Amino acid sequence: MCKAAHEKQSTLSVIDKDFTILYNNKKEVCKLSEQIVIVYILVIGNNRFAMKNGKVGGAIVAAKEISMAVIKRLPKYYRNLGELLEKQVERISSKELSERMQVTASQIRQDLNNFGGFGQQGYGYNVEYLYTEIGKILGLTRKYHMIVIGAGNLGQAIANYTDFEKLGFVLECMFDQKESLIGTEIRGVKIADVSELEEYMKHHAVDIAAITIPKDHAPELAASLVKWGARAIWNFAPTDLHLPEEVKVENVHLADSLMRLSYSIKKE
Amino acid sequence: MCKAAHEKQSTLSVIDKDFTILYNNKKEVCKLSEQIVIVYILVIGNNRFAMKNGKVGGAIVAAKEISMAVIKRLPKYYRNLGELLEKQVERISSKELSERMQVTASQIRQDLNNFGGFGQQGYGYNVEYLYTEIGKILGLTRKYHMIVIGAGNLGQAIANYTDFEKLGFVLECMFDQKESLIGTEIRGVKIADVSELEEYMKHHAVDIAAITIPKDHAPELAASLVKWGARAIWNFAPTDLHLPEEVKVENVHLADSLMRLSYSIKKE
Repeated sequence: MCKAAHEKQSTLSVIDKDFTILYNNKKEVCKLSEQIVIVYILVIGNNRFAMKNGKVGGAIVAAKEISMAVIKRLPKYYRNLGELLEKQVERISSKELSERMQVTASQIRQDLNNFGGFGQQGYGYNVEYLYTEIGKILGLTRKYHMIVIGAGNLGQAIANYTDFEKLGFVLECMFDQKESLIGTEIRGVKIADVSELEEYMKHHAVDIAAITIPKDHAPELAASLVKWGARAIWNFAPTDLHLPEEVKVENVHLADSLMRLSYSIKKE
Repeated sequence: MCKAAHEKQSTLSVIDKDFTILYNNKKEVCKLSEQIVIVYILVIGNNRFAMKNGKVGGAIVAAKEISMAVIKRLPKYYRNLGELLEKQVERISSKELSERMQVTASQIRQDLNNFGGFGQQGYGYNVEYLYTEIGKILGLTRKYHMIVIGAGNLGQAIANYTDFEKLGFVLECMFDQKESLIGTEIRGVKIADVSELEEYMKHHAVDIAAITIPKDHAPELAASLVKWGARAIWNFAPTDLHLPEEVKVENVHLADSLMRLSYSIKKE
């Protein structure tokens, strides 16, 4: 992790994906790769004080790493806060949020402290603010163009999920090889012949390609998708794809989920 | 965690779900709840030596905890080993398995060491043995009776997944409220009227109830299922269920998965 600056005259700027700390006239650039760095700076007169966990820690600039474990929990926060917003709840205490999310209140406070002073003692969290900030961290401030390859039951289930679109994931086209499906539409989304996929990808910016075809053909399809420019794969095929490191893959392995369930049943 | 016995005259027995350590004539019973305890004992003459990570550690009985992180990775091992078995691969080195599973070889060795000496230097892992042992840990040595409530696209996708049955998860019946679906069959599995669900559960031992209905009705349905005897829920509704602690819940939150993907895309 990048060093934090320990000098009064420190300045810090966040530029796009990197952040720069300038102290004692030496510049240090930190890459934001697996970590997010959050810095709270309180300016009093000419001094900058660092805030960490809501406390003023001294005249330093503190950098805090957010673990992948916290990042993985963020969608759950986002979903629960979204449900609260729908019910027009404006504020929630860590205790109430804890009951709702079935994690301890101390875990909630610890998680949310990572993102600065969202909560206030005896006042609770501002639901909308927290929802917006977590949405930003999750990259939900833009639209993602999505295609689905495999228009069977699973592909159709995805197409029928209106929630995805609300989050910004817009399904643009589906592909299949089945004659009876080609040319039909699901909720206004066209099912095209999979043989047109390469041509389609030449002319469309595809952010996410979802694979819902049987596992035997999935590795080959994934490799082709990457060759044609796909940079993120949402994989439902029950196999691990071997793709270049820069390609983002998120797996939904249903059988793995069932096995975790049988494990819990067994150990009862 | 339960104390390990540190005396030569220690004895240890694993009885059903608990294990008992007897040392200095004091008996200590450990509950196996969130952890699995693995103990290797080597008996030489009247002495018992503990083995940990394949090395003889001294005249003690060592107990080792397997973390939930390892448990969560087991389905992936099981799936990959199953694929190797299908290809009639008998042995695999940690290096090859590491390339296949996209984790480091040292991680593989560390994970599998938890389960005793499955591997041998220069010889590799016996694929079938490892597959069988991990299957036992995951509870895959028996059949699980499963029902699906919601016979829409997602429910039908589950019904059409032959892999689940191969693992021992047998879909016995589906339920829906849609007139056009009731009475039809998917791959030989009947779709019944959801109004018959309570009666069905009185007369059938249901191990796992999968919920693939919209989120608004899911909490109420889950509560009813628990009231009628369900002890494990496979939840696809995009909401967190609030059920008694003894009910095992495994969530497949597709939107959460998409959000992890947008997070990875954003931080690129």
